[in-house]
Amino acid sequence: MSGSIYGKHFSIATWGESHGKGIGVVVDGCPAGLSLNEEDIQKFLDRRKPGQSKFTTQRNEADSVKILSGIFEGKTTGTPISMVVFNETQRSQDYSEIANYYRPGHADLTYDLKYGFRDYRGGGRSSGRETIGRVAAGAIAIKILNQLGIDIFAYTKSIGPVAGDEKNFNRDEILNNKLYMPDASAAEKASDYLATCMSECNSSGGVVECIVKHMPAGVGEPAFEKLSANLAKAVFSIGAVKGFEIGDGFDVAKATGLTNNDNYGVSEDGKIEKLTNHSGGILGGISDGSDIILRAAFKPTPSIASTQKTVNKQGEAIDINIKGRHDPIIVPRAVVVVEAMSALCLVDMLFESMTSKMEDVVEFFK
Amino acid sequence: MSGSIYGKHFSIATWGESHGKGIGVVVDGCPAGLSLNEEDIQKFLDRRKPGQSKFTTQRNEADSVKILSGIFEGKTTGTPISMVVFNETQRSQDYSEIANYYRPGHADLTYDLKYGFRDYRGGGRSSGRETIGRVAAGAIAIKILNQLGIDIFAYTKSIGPVAGDEKNFNRDEILNNKLYMPDASAAEKASDYLATCMSECNSSGGVVECIVKHMPAGVGEPAFEKLSANLAKAVFSIGAVKGFEIGDGFDVAKATGLTNNDNYGVSEDGKIEKLTNHSGGILGGISDGSDIILRAAFKPTPSIASTQKTVNKQGEAIDINIKGRHDPIIVPRAVVVVEAMSALCLVDMLFESMTSKMEDVVEFFK
Amino acid sequence: MSGSIYGKHFSIATWGESHGKGIGVVVDGCPAGLSLNEEDIQKFLDRRKPGQSKFTTQRNEADSVKILSGIFEGKTTGTPISMVVFNETQRSQDYSEIANYYRPGHADLTYDLKYGFRDYRGGGRSSGRETIGRVAAGAIAIKILNQLGIDIFAYTKSIGPVAGDEKNFNRDEILNNKLYMPDASAAEKASDYLATCMSECNSSGGVVECIVKHMPAGVGEPAFEKLSANLAKAVFSIGAVKGFEIGDGFDVAKATGLTNNDNYGVSEDGKIEKLTNHSGGILGGISDGSDIILRAAFKPTPSIASTQKTVNKQGEAIDINIKGRHDPIIVPRAVVVVEAMSALCLVDMLFESMTSKMEDVVEFFK
Amino acid sequence: MSGSIYGKHFSIATWGESHGKGIGVVVDGCPAGLSLNEEDIQKFLDRRKPGQSKFTTQRNEADSVKILSGIFEGKTTGTPISMVVFNETQRSQDYSEIANYYRPGHADLTYDLKYGFRDYRGGGRSSGRETIGRVAAGAIAIKILNQLGIDIFAYTKSIGPVAGDEKNFNRDEILNNKLYMPDASAAEKASDYLATCMSECNSSGGVVECIVKHMPAGVGEPAFEKLSANLAKAVFSIGAVKGFEIGDGFDVAKATGLTNNDNYGVSEDGKIEKLTNHSGGILGGISDGSDIILRAAFKPTPSIASTQKTVNKQGEAIDINIKGRHDPIIVPRAVVVVEAMSALCLVDMLFESMTSKMEDVVEFFK
Repeated sequence: MSGSIYGKHFSIATWGESHGKGIGVVVDGCPAGLSLNEEDIQKFLDRRKPGQSKFTTQRNEADSVKILSGIFEGKTTGTPISMVVFNETQRSQDYSEIANYYRPGHADLTYDLKYGFRDYRGGGRSSGRETIGRVAAGAIAIKILNQLGIDIFAYTKSIGPVAGDEKNFNRDEILNNKLYMPDASAAEKASDYLATCMSECNSSGGVVECIVKHMPAGVGEPAFEKLSANLAKAVFSIGAVKGFEIGDGFDVAKATGLTNNDNYGVSEDGKIEKLTNHSGGILGGISDGSDIILRAAFKPTPSIASTQKTVNKQGEAIDINIKGRHDPIIVPRAVVVVEAMSALCLVDMLFESMTSKMEDVVEFFK
Repeated sequence: MSGSIYGKHFSIATWGESHGKGIGVVVDGCPAGLSLNEEDIQKFLDRRKPGQSKFTTQRNEADSVKILSGIFEGKTTGTPISMVVFNETQRSQDYSEIANYYRPGHADLTYDLKYGFRDYRGGGRSSGRETIGRVAAGAIAIKILNQLGIDIFAYTKSIGPVAGDEKNFNRDEILNNKLYMPDASAAEKASDYLATCMSECNSSGGVVECIVKHMPAGVGEPAFEKLSANLAKAVFSIGAVKGFEIGDGFDVAKATGLTNNDNYGVSEDGKIEKLTNHSGGILGGISDGSDIILRAAFKPTPSIASTQKTVNKQGEAIDINIKGRHDPIIVPRAVVVVEAMSALCLVDMLFESMTSKMEDVVEFFK
Repeated sequence: MSGSIYGKHFSIATWGESHGKGIGVVVDGCPAGLSLNEEDIQKFLDRRKPGQSKFTTQRNEADSVKILSGIFEGKTTGTPISMVVFNETQRSQDYSEIANYYRPGHADLTYDLKYGFRDYRGGGRSSGRETIGRVAAGAIAIKILNQLGIDIFAYTKSIGPVAGDEKNFNRDEILNNKLYMPDASAAEKASDYLATCMSECNSSGGVVECIVKHMPAGVGEPAFEKLSANLAKAVFSIGAVKGFEIGDGFDVAKATGLTNNDNYGVSEDGKIEKLTNHSGGILGGISDGSDIILRAAFKPTPSIASTQKTVNKQGEAIDINIKGRHDPIIVPRAVVVVEAMSALCLVDMLFESMTSKMEDVVEFFK
Repeated sequence: MSGSIYGKHFSIATWGESHGKGIGVVVDGCPAGLSLNEEDIQKFLDRRKPGQSKFTTQRNEADSVKILSGIFEGKTTGTPISMVVFNETQRSQDYSEIANYYRPGHADLTYDLKYGFRDYRGGGRSSGRETIGRVAAGAIAIKILNQLGIDIFAYTKSIGPVAGDEKNFNRDEILNNKLYMPDASAAEKASDYLATCMSECNSSGGVVECIVKHMPAGVGEPAFEKLSANLAKAVFSIGAVKGFEIGDGFDVAKATGLTNNDNYGVSEDGKIEKLTNHSGGILGGISDGSDIILRAAFKPTPSIASTQKTVNKQGEAIDINIKGRHDPIIVPRAVVVVEAMSALCLVDMLFESMTSKMEDVVEFFK
């Protein structure tokens, strides 16, 4: 499959461009009998839609999702769930300029090199709007996780040099500020930093963290299909991600066995438990029952108003200033995308793990 | 597939445990007509075999590979290539102790939770010996890359706090020292650091970097099958990897659009070229023709002789001291594994990219 | 993936139910640069739409296709092509009866057993309308085949006891009669037979044949991914198919080596050629360059007005007479579906075959 | 994957050529905790090994299987199971003749066209010995089916014009005669027919039937992954298969809805039951709980001693007489292969079906 299909058991096929007729997704492999309606999906899409704050594009779209199939009498039927968000603004904007050169940091050049030409309107398929399909499908995955007692949430870990303080971590705060940071004071500082970036015609990178609580142990397959490897791919498939880590991540490179190994103890209810969680909930590629912790580094928004050097289709070196207003940072709107992709991966791996033990299989078919 | 099969076009299936009869791999999808013999494979396996230095286990195995199928008159036939390294040391070692508790930082616990029991001899399938199959298959992938004019090499970027200096980078030095570092003086310092670790019954983490030169542009599929996402999965599937990055990696989180965007210029031969390479050779998930640069963070060897807390199968909290001599660091022997996995991913994505343009397909079948 | 995704390279994901909001398909993996518009698709959909003759349901829908993504300036962009046919007749029909029992020969019971409940309106996902997505995607596949110089066409081979006569085979006649038979006189006889079936509240089975001309040799992978095996799956995935064969098919069971082996000779232009084509164009699972010939047996329409025995949801044995008018035969409208599925399979296997030879791969990336 | 990997959940990768070092298979995805030893495998391999009767090749090999990984203390560990049969007879036979021309009915020509050359010794990868890996893996699949209470068996339905009589069907007889027919008197007649074929330097085709009892209902995925479609592919992937059918198969083409529909009744224990089984246990691609019945048509052995026309590598039309002794029929030794492939498919689809209902998934992870 050439890139827009994800998942072995809970599979999704996304489609759509920024300025085409719409953006959508087909979910194949959702179990039957899950209560589902458009509001379940919409609340996740609302977290990534534009126009939420001064740091997002002015494109003012409701991004209203429609479910076209797979639901009957309020429940999933086990057949494909097709969802679509029709694009509202079919703007008559002039794209002749952008069509004629390659924006630095964008996929303009690589699309042309790969396909021979590209739909240059608003970035086409490489637009951030492509993530609408991911989030819509991810909303279903998250609902499945919740039904299994699994809790997943993501947030902005840092914006440029501004990182939240662990001591101020407040989960309720995440959805409370426009930057989706769990530390309100850090969110204020980050807001100031972004205002500066904007005033300087510049943009900022940042880090998203995602935490999964009450994950069953034993999920993830040894060798190539490790849970960690699949999470890495799922999250790294989001545009602008340049780094990914689990648990202590890159810090392990400077750690020692004594500081990095999670020793075991016995919990009050007599179960084996890790005394620390440097591993981020995964050992040998398999979930160990403790919290899964992952992080992704996002590069700064490539669209900036400052002067940049590039080359046009005539092969001439030129200076450009990208017009229009663009988000000075990708991270806040990417938080729900990281959550969605992680959830899609987890549901897929949970389903995969159901045949690990012969006794469970025998019991299932009794 | 449950974990030991990798690749869509150039597929490999690995098998084997540390103390079973052998370790092997089946390669399905290698094009016909590639010259191949056991020496092509062996030279890569030799880079990961034990006993190369004072920092590797004493297990003294030749790890000699045998090719069992898929070659005729010195060339690949297009049919599956089966390769095996038979385990020589069927040691009568006593594993009753290790069988009875869970080693911190290892997959002992997660295997038991997933499968109900485990082959505890030498770590079974979760042993580093599992990578023999990856390296054997990777050797073929690297040969294919080379035939396409692509150059790939990996090395030790840092060991604990000791990182090589860019200014001292010498590619010829990499295979010249036992730590596979391109900076000879850093290798000496790292050697001292590891000696200290060993004397303290401790171990160290580190970073491996891999560089791909002359990569064709246009490889990688948008959305979920980005080249970056697939490299992330390929490398993250190696045991002990906790972080992965492309190009500037996590540094992008603190960068700005002005510093991170790679501007374009015109090369001397009139072609468009990136003036910098912060992107690490990939834009929008598609190779841009510049060097691909990736890094992986490896955790410290979990097997250390120092006292650690764990729990035994009777559910009792106990103190343990792992016996035997273990590598104080995983990184040097993992260098060739990162190279192999990256190559396997690249070959797969190169093949995938062959149907990007209709005109290329029409030309192919003419 | 759970059933509604097909194809490894040229992948499609279909969705939709008979009485839902619409039926659609996402095509992922279509090469960029193929001219494509809605008319290219519509002409194939028109061959399966209802209301073409007295032998098709009265449901009078235009089945107009919309392309929602993946096309720019009249050409495919290499990104997913989303197509949809919105259902027009959202009939207020009373389905309470059909909801309450299991129609013999239909999937009512198996859906309930598998999923716990079902969308019973018009058969839901198991309706023949599900094939709209296949045909829309198949239309693109056929266009690709045509660009590669490959010619594919299917027709009605037999209806009940009425088979066309080889001597009267006239390809131009196929699209000329409502039963899609290449023998006009057989079509007349079949028409009479079907009229009798209808008058007796009964239905008929039949056979569809598909022929592929100018197929390149060397397509199909040994062992499990034989071209024949993939065609078998593709065609057998169409509802109501109960038998499939290639070349001489089941007749080979009574043949001998002397009668069944295709001997070789030298053609006028000095090439090796098969003197007969009992193999139906495939040897060892690989296309041999001669015509591919396949056939599928379709069972009679299960919806008949005659009295049948079944059981209702209360577990009571009852007699039923299915109301409404139903096609007395599936075959004529299935012809284009067989053509579509065969084409989807062929495109997928053609793409797969591009890495068979190392020299071709090297040449491609030069 | 290029052809030698089968299965999504219970995956196998086969390798090996007729005259290479051996034939083998890697099974990935077998649940942990299944008792398994070499004898479990060997008894199935013995049913396909040569030298069982006067109708099989004289190649006298024990075909002894070795398990190289994946078993610990007599049970599967959940990790890959590698099995190998080393080829004993590394015969110094002269293959220069066969290397120089294309045998009619064989894959010689298509391999050359696809790969540019071939391992011509004994047919290389296209030899019937390739099925050893299938049968070894299938033996594990059958053991899994048996543990789930499912019973599977195959037999020779007909040889040339000689078909068994339903009235004489005796399951115990199947393994009792060399032709694996359930009707002893038919086996005698078939034996005579084959003797005639041999005396005439000719060969015969035949049909294999496979029956699956106590199959759980609800297995098989709608649309493309129908149970019937997957069985079709699995069985059609066996060399020499030219036709496949389920239930009434091709006879449905001449049937009517009244004769073909399976009506429903209520069983003595109050359950819904089909009153007939024309559907062969599958409705809408999903198992309906009744016996699955499938058939495959095998072409006559292409290697015959009679004079045939072919072309040599110099492009000259020549007459040939294939030397050596060859089985006059493929069917008897293919019976266990059909059984194995059907079982591999069934296990895969059973595992796939485990996520059909949300309530089952919730229950599983409780």
